[in-house]
Amino acid sequence: MARIVMKFGGTSMAGTERIRTVAKLVAREVAQGNEVAVVVSAMAGETDRLVNFCREANPRYDPAEYDVVVASGEQVTSGLLALTLQAMGVPARSWLGWQLPIRTEEAHARARISDIDTGALSAAMAKGEVAVIPGFQGMMDDGRISTLGRGGSDTSAVAVAAAVKADRCDIYTDVDGVYTTDPRIVARARKLDYVTYEEMLELASVGAKVLQTRSVGLAMKEGVRVQVLSSFVEGDEAPAKGTMIVSDEEIEEHQMERQLITGIAHDKNEAKIIVTRVPDKPGAVASIFGPLAAAGINVDMIIQNVGRDKGETDVTFTVPGADLLRSIDLLEGAKDKIGFNRILSDDKVAKISVVGVGMKSHAGVASTMFRALADRGINIQAISTSEIKVSVLIDEDETELAVRVLHTAYGLDAE
Amino acid sequence: MARIVMKFGGTSMAGTERIRTVAKLVAREVAQGNEVAVVVSAMAGETDRLVNFCREANPRYDPAEYDVVVASGEQVTSGLLALTLQAMGVPARSWLGWQLPIRTEEAHARARISDIDTGALSAAMAKGEVAVIPGFQGMMDDGRISTLGRGGSDTSAVAVAAAVKADRCDIYTDVDGVYTTDPRIVARARKLDYVTYEEMLELASVGAKVLQTRSVGLAMKEGVRVQVLSSFVEGDEAPAKGTMIVSDEEIEEHQMERQLITGIAHDKNEAKIIVTRVPDKPGAVASIFGPLAAAGINVDMIIQNVGRDKGETDVTFTVPGADLLRSIDLLEGAKDKIGFNRILSDDKVAKISVVGVGMKSHAGVASTMFRALADRGINIQAISTSEIKVSVLIDEDETELAVRVLHTAYGLDAE
Repeated sequence: MARIVMKFGGTSMAGTERIRTVAKLVAREVAQGNEVAVVVSAMAGETDRLVNFCREANPRYDPAEYDVVVASGEQVTSGLLALTLQAMGVPARSWLGWQLPIRTEEAHARARISDIDTGALSAAMAKGEVAVIPGFQGMMDDGRISTLGRGGSDTSAVAVAAAVKADRCDIYTDVDGVYTTDPRIVARARKLDYVTYEEMLELASVGAKVLQTRSVGLAMKEGVRVQVLSSFVEGDEAPAKGTMIVSDEEIEEHQMERQLITGIAHDKNEAKIIVTRVPDKPGAVASIFGPLAAAGINVDMIIQNVGRDKGETDVTFTVPGADLLRSIDLLEGAKDKIGFNRILSDDKVAKISVVGVGMKSHAGVASTMFRALADRGINIQAISTSEIKVSVLIDEDETELAVRVLHTAYGLDAE
Repeated sequence: MARIVMKFGGTSMAGTERIRTVAKLVAREVAQGNEVAVVVSAMAGETDRLVNFCREANPRYDPAEYDVVVASGEQVTSGLLALTLQAMGVPARSWLGWQLPIRTEEAHARARISDIDTGALSAAMAKGEVAVIPGFQGMMDDGRISTLGRGGSDTSAVAVAAAVKADRCDIYTDVDGVYTTDPRIVARARKLDYVTYEEMLELASVGAKVLQTRSVGLAMKEGVRVQVLSSFVEGDEAPAKGTMIVSDEEIEEHQMERQLITGIAHDKNEAKIIVTRVPDKPGAVASIFGPLAAAGINVDMIIQNVGRDKGETDVTFTVPGADLLRSIDLLEGAKDKIGFNRILSDDKVAKISVVGVGMKSHAGVASTMFRALADRGINIQAISTSEIKVSVLIDEDETELAVRVLHTAYGLDAE
């Protein structure tokens, strides 16, 4: 017997028939003697519909009332899943965010879960009743409804799993796991059986959209074992095994030999900025990044080139593509203080990252990377590294080629 | 300054534009210095959509989960009205049933309000903030969401008005008041300025569908002054004065001379049953109505005709049309015990009622009625009376003719 939290997204909850498929997956876990809590999203499209109503009502909406409106989507699906389970003879009841309660703090519309009261929840699960919990919502200390921000249901599921000390948190989605790279680019991409929290964070943050990044961070902090798997099953079939996201230690136990590299991620949402002929003196670089940091713009991949002219340097860095114009405005506004010549920018760039907890030295990984890319004539514009990844910035047009070349170079291609 | 509860139904809340019209009506009351609470229904069609989801999920649905699902409709509109008021610069916030709380008892899906905590509500209203309250919903003692049954928002509004001791409860709807009779039948029907609770109960229960009967009963019990008026106004126009539903005493203060008759109601949802040749002995009639009462079937208009044969009698009565087949089944099941010959039935009948607190003697009212109907050849099949009404059962085809004839006979036609 295990204690399991299952989470189903909007496509899985879109309408009576899909909810019935979900209920069968839940009933299967119950039949195996497991204690089950289920976290659900609103029906696909419903949250957008409700958000639009709020915008129409008041373009600068009060987030407290926004939360009242949008939280209703998950309220509906949690009631409907409880009803569907009951129709199959599986005892079930819904527990709304304010009923448990799931306490949150900070701001409406982007709240953070601070505490989940598990008294009633554990009692219900222990007596064999499935607890159906709307994702994305909670309650502020003042008794008002809060929501966690778009995609927050993954985080709700992980938080519930941590609170009830679940053996596993199964996140059902429309893909069947985490792959070594985007299968739409590399046909021979392999589904990973295991991936560490750290790797998943890097893979998610650089473009593999499977789980909300926040939920992975929470799972890592709380030690929640997460499985990503597909809710699209035929008839009464068991769902296929997905990818387990676990601690480094657990992977050590399961795998004799570790891959050097776990996966290749790509991200086309970066933009490159070059600030030319900045005075090469202390404080100059700080004067560039100060205004960007103050505006909450996330600067990545910084390179300083010694300029042709003595005492001057070119500074190259990347920002999220959506922040490009704002970044340029901020820099132009500080031109006198920074003392640069001009700003060049390019949003036709892509960041390619090789990720792996097993990488022993960045030098070895990087040299394989540079050689493989150079062999195909791909020019590297910038480099950055973290504990478990090496990233390069290249021309956006070469994204797919680079991903394929690296996937082969690190021996990730399926047989 | 007055304290006012305003209630808006589903057609008034159907979409952003309609909600903006509602917000203008609310803002108008606030601008006059009034303290305002607003009770809202779900958008027209939304409750049906949610009820259908429940039926699809589980035909024999758990009413507790049904309540979770359907209560979401009013949650959405209360948030949206608060947002719309804020956009107009009117301070407002939503108060969900469980937040006040509005406590209910008895059964899910047909709960009764037992108590409304007015602490937070009165404080908010007193500081000039409009309290927007979803109708139709409350909270059971176990902390679960309850709903009051279809049309329950009228009752919510009256209950809130009673709790906050409102000077008036304005029920905005798609008609502009209560008429002397159905204006679709009698073009010269007049809008009433005042009507008593008792008259409204009779007019509502016999077919004038303006207010939920339960809400009128509650208003009478709590002494809440209710106004029925139209939410359909042009631009920034003030709403037209509607019909006030008040106590007999208040009408006495306002009106020098009382009309004998206030209105004419009709109801085509009755069916007639004739049980022939029942033994004319003590207990026989009781054996007919016992099984019907036990099944919760509401029997009206009973006549006992002495039969042609000695020691036998025919018993005629009416039941709601929806209960006709069930009533016949029940009577056939008790045939041996009752000892009748056969059952005749007719659902092509209509009940026409003349209603008026001012009627001094039933005899006078009735004789005018019989003469007027006889003059037009309309045959009376049964008669019943209460303190403030006289009803007759006639052929359904003659409904409109009878209503017009009586409207004229009692001097109700507009000039």
